Amino acid sequence: MMEIQEFGEKLARLAKLAVRLGCNIQPGQDLILAAPFQSIELVRLIADEAYKAGAHNVVPFLSDDALTLARFEHGSDAALDSAPRWLHAAMAEALKAGAARLTVTGNTPGLLAGIPQDKISRSAKAQAEASRPALSVTAQMGTNWSCIPFASSGWAAKVFPDVPPDEAVVKLWELIFLATRTDQPDPVLAWTRNFDTLNARKARLQENAFDALHFYDGATDLTVGLAANHIWVGGQEHTPTGLRFSPNLPTEEVFTVPNRTQTQGRAVFSKPVVLGGTVVEDLVVTFEDGRAAIESASAGGAAFEAFLETDASARYLGEVALVPHSSPISQSGVLCFNTLFDENAACHIAFGNSYPINLPKGADAKAAGANESMVHMDCMIGTRRMNVDGVREGQPPAAIMRDGEFVF
Amino acid sequence: MMEIQEFGEKLARLAKLAVRLGCNIQPGQDLILAAPFQSIELVRLIADEAYKAGAHNVVPFLSDDALTLARFEHGSDAALDSAPRWLHAAMAEALKAGAARLTVTGNTPGLLAGIPQDKISRSAKAQAEASRPALSVTAQMGTNWSCIPFASSGWAAKVFPDVPPDEAVVKLWELIFLATRTDQPDPVLAWTRNFDTLNARKARLQENAFDALHFYDGATDLTVGLAANHIWVGGQEHTPTGLRFSPNLPTEEVFTVPNRTQTQGRAVFSKPVVLGGTVVEDLVVTFEDGRAAIESASAGGAAFEAFLETDASARYLGEVALVPHSSPISQSGVLCFNTLFDENAACHIAFGNSYPINLPKGADAKAAGANESMVHMDCMIGTRRMNVDGVREGQPPAAIMRDGEFVF
Repeated sequence: MMEIQEFGEKLARLAKLAVRLGCNIQPGQDLILAAPFQSIELVRLIADEAYKAGAHNVVPFLSDDALTLARFEHGSDAALDSAPRWLHAAMAEALKAGAARLTVTGNTPGLLAGIPQDKISRSAKAQAEASRPALSVTAQMGTNWSCIPFASSGWAAKVFPDVPPDEAVVKLWELIFLATRTDQPDPVLAWTRNFDTLNARKARLQENAFDALHFYDGATDLTVGLAANHIWVGGQEHTPTGLRFSPNLPTEEVFTVPNRTQTQGRAVFSKPVVLGGTVVEDLVVTFEDGRAAIESASAGGAAFEAFLETDASARYLGEVALVPHSSPISQSGVLCFNTLFDENAACHIAFGNSYPINLPKGADAKAAGANESMVHMDCMIGTRRMNVDGVREGQPPAAIMRDGEFVF
Repeated sequence: MMEIQEFGEKLARLAKLAVRLGCNIQPGQDLILAAPFQSIELVRLIADEAYKAGAHNVVPFLSDDALTLARFEHGSDAALDSAPRWLHAAMAEALKAGAARLTVTGNTPGLLAGIPQDKISRSAKAQAEASRPALSVTAQMGTNWSCIPFASSGWAAKVFPDVPPDEAVVKLWELIFLATRTDQPDPVLAWTRNFDTLNARKARLQENAFDALHFYDGATDLTVGLAANHIWVGGQEHTPTGLRFSPNLPTEEVFTVPNRTQTQGRAVFSKPVVLGGTVVEDLVVTFEDGRAAIESASAGGAAFEAFLETDASARYLGEVALVPHSSPISQSGVLCFNTLFDENAACHIAFGNSYPINLPKGADAKAAGANESMVHMDCMIGTRRMNVDGVREGQPPAAIMRDGEFVF
């Protein structure tokens, strides 16, 4: 168990990291701060730090599991088909005009497990449409933004189901402090070093302009063809005016965009896939010309098949990412049921939509072979035995990773 | 002390009252729900009830004392001079487009007591300017809205400083349940009866079209001249499309607009006046041709004089209101440090701005003699001995109240 004082110091470091290194708040900026209301203590520390950094208005949007459920339980179908467009539109305008955004994520995995799927789908569709203008600003790095974790009780109970609730929260905080390097005396220095490492990896991968990546560890044997003019992304980003920020804390991945029809072979998923309320286990998928088919699953196969049917492109890849097995989250060995954590624990592929930042500005995504879909789902394939080769026509394979580590 | 179950039932009744009788939420409406984050349990009950009433989106804006203070403590002057206009503008648009608004009020009296006055003033000015478009929609009853109380710990500690904090909260809840009639088996029926009473009073006062009201109880002897074509308001309101709602719960007052230059005499205030962090006690004010001057005060006189100097019109009256001494809040004998409560405990006059609803639509406020100011401050003069006469030229005075009660 942590001492209360020690906990308070680490929480303050996390707030400072989020404001200074994550968002890199500049004097005069408004900060749109989305957070679970449970995280009010962290929200207050973030606000202190943001005002010290010169923020003009810290505008909190506090969410609550019970309010989310109330909508599904008591809202009409018409309610679920609607969204507060006026609010989403205002946020998009604020972001375009230079506001920063910070998301504190501590979602309860499987919160909607008891809600009929058609209600979830119609609500998700309405919310996605309403939030598209704001998401398009952040997805294109149009302003500085970041995302950090918070150990909510609902999340902790899912990650550590076998310990008492209070202890589960403490254990999840320990993992968060480890992963965000806020357990280190100078987290900003630690992250600066990690960003240097990620930058070096991106630069070498970019130079080499591989046609494909070949993953093999004895179980998985998968070749992921890369899109023409693909760009490697990871670590820090910058706004059009050159302001640096860190979209995700923690972050350990470098990632790029596959060509949707050029993935071949077999992927044995190394972690369960969490789909809303369902956990899909021991999934094995085969690819032919980019199209995925389920070979087997010990649980949740039908839910995953339904996911792959979401639209015509959900069955194709939109992202491929490299993460060393020695990353702090990976070493913890914990399944976190949270993308911000799990995607930074292992090499992964993502079904569905690709990111615009993985192609040159103004590129024709379709012509480059990038996938476009309504969904995006990360699936872990990395293991301690994973090897990755870079493949280029007419050249011998280049060793990128061996036994889960970069050798590149 | 209340039983937990009993408390839960009363809280649920308050939520239902706020949604059904207060806002009168209609199917398809969005609900802008402003509340202290401490009131999350009440907010959840309100959301349940609003969705059951057919609300499309309940959009919570949860405030927090610490976040309010962080802005003053760590924000720059430029920050205090700013406001999230994009958010206020979006709310105004939503209200104009038909969204409802519910405010849960539990402000901590004197929260800003330690903040320099110039910081408070510059922030108040920026916030007032930004929120004007939204307030103008609600002030003109352009949509259905309401305001209900919540027993926050900060408010309870101020009202009941001599009991332990938990007990103070319970005592304040008891007062709230009494005042909002949620301690009665059928609060909606109780309010319907009260609104009938208020409607009858308004109708008689309106019929009589008095030139002035004369207040006298042995200490106060004050004649308040009324504006030409003044309208008596109180209880329920309706939107332009005829939807009924109750802007304040509790509410016990009927009120109208004075002629700014026609108040004469002496007012002995029957309750302290709370001005930000300062409590003004035993205030006596004299009026000459509407203009107020302080005769004496046992504490806080300088702060009240500064208030009267806010602008050229703060020293003149903008409202006069009649409340029987038998009202539930008055009977409790408690000073609540909250306008929603204190203004419903006693007859009062208000310095500063008048309400547009107290004049016919489109009337020229200046020509009618209505005061216009940046501020509005209610000051209680009602006592158990207060008499009020209606005065009309060439006629004998009409008895409206005797010994604190309506006889009209």
